[in-house]
Amino acid sequence: MGILINFDHASATQPLPEVVESMMPFLRDNYGNPSSMHMLGQQAKEKLDKAREQLATLINANPEEVVFTASGSESNNFALKGVAFGNRKKGNHIIVSAIEHFSVLQAAKSLEKLGYQVTQIPVDTDGLVDPNDVKNEITDKTILVSIMHANPEIGTIEPIEEIGKITREKDVLFHSDAIQTVGAIPVDVKKLNVDFLSFAAPTFYGLKGVAGFYIRKGSRINPLIDGGTQESGRRAGTENMIGIIGMGTAAEIAAKEMDKRMAHLRSLRDLMIKSIEEKIDHVYLHGHRTQRLPNNINFGFEFIEGESILLFLGMSNIIASSGSACTSKALKASHVLLAIGVSHAIANGTILFTLGIDNTEDDVKFLGEKLPPIVERLRAMSPLYKK
Amino acid sequence: MGILINFDHASATQPLPEVVESMMPFLRDNYGNPSSMHMLGQQAKEKLDKAREQLATLINANPEEVVFTASGSESNNFALKGVAFGNRKKGNHIIVSAIEHFSVLQAAKSLEKLGYQVTQIPVDTDGLVDPNDVKNEITDKTILVSIMHANPEIGTIEPIEEIGKITREKDVLFHSDAIQTVGAIPVDVKKLNVDFLSFAAPTFYGLKGVAGFYIRKGSRINPLIDGGTQESGRRAGTENMIGIIGMGTAAEIAAKEMDKRMAHLRSLRDLMIKSIEEKIDHVYLHGHRTQRLPNNINFGFEFIEGESILLFLGMSNIIASSGSACTSKALKASHVLLAIGVSHAIANGTILFTLGIDNTEDDVKFLGEKLPPIVERLRAMSPLYKK
Repeated sequence: MGILINFDHASATQPLPEVVESMMPFLRDNYGNPSSMHMLGQQAKEKLDKAREQLATLINANPEEVVFTASGSESNNFALKGVAFGNRKKGNHIIVSAIEHFSVLQAAKSLEKLGYQVTQIPVDTDGLVDPNDVKNEITDKTILVSIMHANPEIGTIEPIEEIGKITREKDVLFHSDAIQTVGAIPVDVKKLNVDFLSFAAPTFYGLKGVAGFYIRKGSRINPLIDGGTQESGRRAGTENMIGIIGMGTAAEIAAKEMDKRMAHLRSLRDLMIKSIEEKIDHVYLHGHRTQRLPNNINFGFEFIEGESILLFLGMSNIIASSGSACTSKALKASHVLLAIGVSHAIANGTILFTLGIDNTEDDVKFLGEKLPPIVERLRAMSPLYKK
Repeated sequence: MGILINFDHASATQPLPEVVESMMPFLRDNYGNPSSMHMLGQQAKEKLDKAREQLATLINANPEEVVFTASGSESNNFALKGVAFGNRKKGNHIIVSAIEHFSVLQAAKSLEKLGYQVTQIPVDTDGLVDPNDVKNEITDKTILVSIMHANPEIGTIEPIEEIGKITREKDVLFHSDAIQTVGAIPVDVKKLNVDFLSFAAPTFYGLKGVAGFYIRKGSRINPLIDGGTQESGRRAGTENMIGIIGMGTAAEIAAKEMDKRMAHLRSLRDLMIKSIEEKIDHVYLHGHRTQRLPNNINFGFEFIEGESILLFLGMSNIIASSGSACTSKALKASHVLLAIGVSHAIANGTILFTLGIDNTEDDVKFLGEKLPPIVERLRAMSPLYKK
């Protein structure tokens, strides 16, 4: 395989060399378990504490408010099930948005089967949640509101701070799935008024299968994984030490380079959007045009299938996605696109491009050359298309 | 720190060089997400499938019966909560042994709070469960029996095959926590008659924070982590690719070297037991003398504190443990020792030595020189001890 142009960073990012380097000693001599009292264990404990500080700094939390998990999906399940089981006496009502990640929506569905009630808040055509809708749905049985910080498919950034003001006023716990934003754009848990926040390492060039969860001090939640006293009893299980150490390194670098990365990604994003809109007709940008992740471009191409576009892009060594990685095999129209009012036909003709810090202006220009003839060729074969 | 003699392999093992080597490409160019349809994703998918086959071979399962998780604790929680929530209509009764790992016992406790009923089966002074006790406790409300394959503290290997015959006859689902045995001694899921089995990579020199779960085809269980379609919808979340690839390599080597490793460890174990019993009086071997993990030595030293022994051993660069890593900070007497009838006093004077394939006869002889004077010295200071 030749050199790939990766426009699918939402699915996979390459770990930074510094991340890999920082892990290496723990693959060799320093292989201790941080729960052990002896020197080998205490060395590991120090490294675990350091990583916790690095993550806490990134999101403006206290280190003891950070719990390590194995995926953003685990963090989201922790939020929903942990709050549901830990606050049963208070109520059984949970509010989510219609465009949450499957790990929130399916966890909510599991809870419904156990007698919980779930309200799905709709979004507007840009994918925005209206904070007033949240306010209006809160009852005295509501124990949790879970609204994502930014949507991985359409890139829309939600008004979390405003929603957080409402939940705090109403004394309801508030979780935000910030897997797309932590390490990518500034995230300050205090400013956002959240009680729980999910994040994951790959967003900021750490390893896959490494993630975390913020629990505001005093917020009532049960463990998802019961057992030993790891993570102060909030998440049992021997820690993925190398992954956590790597995530700590990645967090520190992300904080330092955030402004530079954001400027770079935004300029590429805007260039790609401009190029596609100028060169191809019947295209629709999905998601909010400005209140949007710096690395997200999502276009519906009318009259053709996204999968066919991807196939042809692949022949030019360009990779992108037809939706979120978790659903790419389902081949169903994205629930997110349907929620913002996109038709099934255009949803099926949608491509998600997610940029990474390794992408260049040349990459975007290359796409700008390759994509228009692909779309034209596919439309020429389409019975639906008339020029 | 000088060269350590690690007699605490139950807490931490050093990953094999081959394990680290097999992971390295996936820290660099091959960083794909196995859920992606494009080439980078499909490369990752192939590696994931290969690791699944390697694990399946180790335990005589079909590859599609293997699910990857992030810790043995997660696997155990998956078993208890997944079966409980997935079989509510059938019943609400769960049977465990008194010496299960905390991740089983605490998960059971969480389920009790949700209305489930849990029966704890006692064990004899060797730590053995009597299969007849299991048989007698099964009712028409019983949905799960969970008995560990071997206990991490006292090393006793339980009669899983016999218990499995009973559960199968009674048509009750059967889970075994085999975290201490998979990769260490032969484990054949078909022979053991289990429906679910937990295992973890560090036991066979893979990475910490990487583990797995066997689900016999057709056995009813809900996910612990809901969301995307990873692991055939049984465990959502982006996979810890490097950890899983490493575990696959470790599994293949473990299968190949098992006989050799077992012979080596058993000979060191028996040498250590003999040496301690010959050189020190008032010592008590905990756990079954022969039906025992090849790498486990657990002794109660009367009249003194285990923590003090560990401190002095540490000065000779020998590390060991006062109990399971998950509870080492709790400084409470082990629930396992109490369950086999050990007094609080002797429980507090207990040391767990767990051998690894890197230990040598010289290591054991070195301990045989260092330990007796330490015990003697501590006893000399003890008001309880009279020579």
